[in-house]
Amino acid sequence: MIKIGKTVLGGPKIALIAGPCAVESLEQTMQTAHFLQSQGVSVFRAGAFKPRTNPTSFQGLGEQGLEILARVKKETGLLICTEVMDARQIPAVSRVADLLQVGARNMQNYDLLRELGRQEKPVLLKNGLAATVDELIGAGEYVLQGGNTDLIYCLRGIRTFETRTRFAFDPALVEALKNETKRPVIVDPSHSAGRRDLVYPIARAAVAVGADGLLVEVHPDPTKAKSDAEQQLDFGGFERLLAELRPIAQAVGRTL
Amino acid sequence: MIKIGKTVLGGPKIALIAGPCAVESLEQTMQTAHFLQSQGVSVFRAGAFKPRTNPTSFQGLGEQGLEILARVKKETGLLICTEVMDARQIPAVSRVADLLQVGARNMQNYDLLRELGRQEKPVLLKNGLAATVDELIGAGEYVLQGGNTDLIYCLRGIRTFETRTRFAFDPALVEALKNETKRPVIVDPSHSAGRRDLVYPIARAAVAVGADGLLVEVHPDPTKAKSDAEQQLDFGGFERLLAELRPIAQAVGRTL
Amino acid sequence: MIKIGKTVLGGPKIALIAGPCAVESLEQTMQTAHFLQSQGVSVFRAGAFKPRTNPTSFQGLGEQGLEILARVKKETGLLICTEVMDARQIPAVSRVADLLQVGARNMQNYDLLRELGRQEKPVLLKNGLAATVDELIGAGEYVLQGGNTDLIYCLRGIRTFETRTRFAFDPALVEALKNETKRPVIVDPSHSAGRRDLVYPIARAAVAVGADGLLVEVHPDPTKAKSDAEQQLDFGGFERLLAELRPIAQAVGRTL
Amino acid sequence: MIKIGKTVLGGPKIALIAGPCAVESLEQTMQTAHFLQSQGVSVFRAGAFKPRTNPTSFQGLGEQGLEILARVKKETGLLICTEVMDARQIPAVSRVADLLQVGARNMQNYDLLRELGRQEKPVLLKNGLAATVDELIGAGEYVLQGGNTDLIYCLRGIRTFETRTRFAFDPALVEALKNETKRPVIVDPSHSAGRRDLVYPIARAAVAVGADGLLVEVHPDPTKAKSDAEQQLDFGGFERLLAELRPIAQAVGRTL
Repeated sequence: MIKIGKTVLGGPKIALIAGPCAVESLEQTMQTAHFLQSQGVSVFRAGAFKPRTNPTSFQGLGEQGLEILARVKKETGLLICTEVMDARQIPAVSRVADLLQVGARNMQNYDLLRELGRQEKPVLLKNGLAATVDELIGAGEYVLQGGNTDLIYCLRGIRTFETRTRFAFDPALVEALKNETKRPVIVDPSHSAGRRDLVYPIARAAVAVGADGLLVEVHPDPTKAKSDAEQQLDFGGFERLLAELRPIAQAVGRTL
Repeated sequence: MIKIGKTVLGGPKIALIAGPCAVESLEQTMQTAHFLQSQGVSVFRAGAFKPRTNPTSFQGLGEQGLEILARVKKETGLLICTEVMDARQIPAVSRVADLLQVGARNMQNYDLLRELGRQEKPVLLKNGLAATVDELIGAGEYVLQGGNTDLIYCLRGIRTFETRTRFAFDPALVEALKNETKRPVIVDPSHSAGRRDLVYPIARAAVAVGADGLLVEVHPDPTKAKSDAEQQLDFGGFERLLAELRPIAQAVGRTL
Repeated sequence: MIKIGKTVLGGPKIALIAGPCAVESLEQTMQTAHFLQSQGVSVFRAGAFKPRTNPTSFQGLGEQGLEILARVKKETGLLICTEVMDARQIPAVSRVADLLQVGARNMQNYDLLRELGRQEKPVLLKNGLAATVDELIGAGEYVLQGGNTDLIYCLRGIRTFETRTRFAFDPALVEALKNETKRPVIVDPSHSAGRRDLVYPIARAAVAVGADGLLVEVHPDPTKAKSDAEQQLDFGGFERLLAELRPIAQAVGRTL
Repeated sequence: MIKIGKTVLGGPKIALIAGPCAVESLEQTMQTAHFLQSQGVSVFRAGAFKPRTNPTSFQGLGEQGLEILARVKKETGLLICTEVMDARQIPAVSRVADLLQVGARNMQNYDLLRELGRQEKPVLLKNGLAATVDELIGAGEYVLQGGNTDLIYCLRGIRTFETRTRFAFDPALVEALKNETKRPVIVDPSHSAGRRDLVYPIARAAVAVGADGLLVEVHPDPTKAKSDAEQQLDFGGFERLLAELRPIAQAVGRTL
């Protein structure tokens, strides 16, 4: 079990980590944060530094994005989860983040992981786009070896030839990974799905197999989002998601 | 919704299709059938003709296996689901089977599918080892075009580079396939998992995402099974599975 | 080394097996055959029975296609290679074919393979869309066990997430498969590539790694082909291909 | 065409970039360098910083490894290619390296790529373990956007379910990538193969399809290597490789 403020990962309560793919503006970010707070979300996620396949795509607001996240934190009291892409960003990101996220593309950025192993903030490590569980565990060892034992794994699906989902989330791996590592495992249904309507079944499956948390992308107006427009839920969608998940959480002896 | 005897696929009740990987003997088969009947299973599955990667592996009892299945049917009244591997086997298999299974390796055996399209028995079509949903739907069209509309899809996972599970079951595809085809979709957690302990989470995920049935391998003594020894559940394991699934079924408005 | 008429597979001469994806008409087939004969091709390939992903796609001319192939054989003396999709087609196909092809989708159609094991015609076995080399060898064992030792393997690439090629042809597998089985291994650059311009490099790689033959799709007017329009070479393209391959064949101590 | 000292990538001469997986000692490194120099190799490759799946594996000699490479450079005049894993290492690595290598695990380490875009040294960018060509090109754009146009792509195979090779090298992608980017493309047969005997066919295929260079792992005694022991060639093996490649290079109008 890992504590982040009052939020516990790995206990009976399933942690909700939600927010827009990226910090786009103060208004969009704050509006989402207030809504999510009203829904019982305890950790707000949003990217300031965005790892995009092409340099011409929106790269995030960077330092300015971190400032917006700091305001969200101050105004709402929500915990902040945001991505760190390079070891040199750690000091700046750590000033606002309560949970340091390593994205799929950096799962094997070992110098970044080593540096995170020396931090006192919990680390959320997502599996690589086509990583095996062995590689994910190996990557996690880089953090643990540095002395930082607040490590949370996040399964976000792997690449296959199937095109209906962007990445295949294999629910059995949640159980395998939890049993092998005795660490919290959360699931990211948004990136696995790659399309809004399939976020729901993946999240339901994740809860049914014992995920300790969910990382969900939520945006006030997803169709206008600067990234991941296809997969972010709007506010109504997030409410529907929670309504679907509550009875399943209860059925497996958990709460949301 | 498709009816097989009194069993309905696609309605509120999730169908349990269970039995050993292969008919190995009268005793092993009958013992399993009686147990499963006591657990509320309505369709008994067991292979008489086994598609094995190598010809030196156990190939099933063939016609003798069908005779054993006929005795199970007579003695227990259970419906029978068994695999047909070649168009020439259809008459013999149809004499005993209530549900004609097409295995993963034959998903694109189009002459077999065409012939099944002319039968009056329901067809259970499993996805190929590395088939896309588009290809699965295309294969199903061969059956439907022949006039046989009692077609049930079965998702059994696809091949990836991950080794902890034999085949990755992507729960989102249940929803995608149901929405696109308006047909019953069942899930085979045994072949996806490839190992006993992971059958449970996959089955839980399947129920949570709306699977209309489960195809589960059960054997009186799995370690002595002539095939799939690693993944078959024993009787206690099947009872534990049902206990895990019932509350989740209820949570999604279904029954087992 | 396997002999088909005067053609030897597995010797110093690399066998050219070429022809249109499908028999579409007497004229299209005969025209292609005459052209290929002029280029030194010894085995003519064309499908009469076509395994298509959807039943609404062109399924081949069937028996009529076999008749056209018989006329090609009579008029040109070319050997004929054509696909058999179902055990029941073997007698009809065998009347015209000198080389019985099993396509990727039927690599694990074990009843078909068993039946081919009892024939006196050589068998060309293509790897499944996502088959491992172990599975290909296992499938081949079904033919060999029946007593038919004239078995030729054909590598046609496997499915990955990359989209530039339809199937990834791994050249190292030619060497691995030849060393392990001591059998002729041919390569199908057309289906691996999935697009005309990439047929050339795959064929060059195949010759460089020791392929015993090439299976190439050639059509008088590929853009009008009823199947595989994107990947068939026209006559000029085939001439260019041979011109590219000859020096490489010589460099590895082979001839075309 | 890109020049590194007197070595030209993208011209008629195929560049040989060879050396041990890792700098293990002064003696092992210098011995290999002298041998390779005698074989006409112009760029020496060896890792000082090693990205290993687990932190308990040999991580390279680090700064000490760079010093050994500096001595090799001074004593032999060979150009040096070595990997940089983190933006903070660039100054130290640049003092000795003539060609800055980005490994597969860091292909999408965008901050590293951005920083390399500001350097005056050529960059060798390897494709990720399971990257698409689109993603490789996208990653390269991060370097180019910074103003560094001396970018060389290296194809080292992608992950599939096949186990005989560690990564599938698709030869068609060399042609596709060269045509689309008009940049030099080299091939790494050692990492694709993952086993010594398959390095040869992959290298032959690479030359046949127009690779502008080869990156080959060579070690004085591969079985004692601290990393990649299965795939490094010994000196005799490298001589055999060159003997195999020369006639193929000539056949495609190139020299070694």
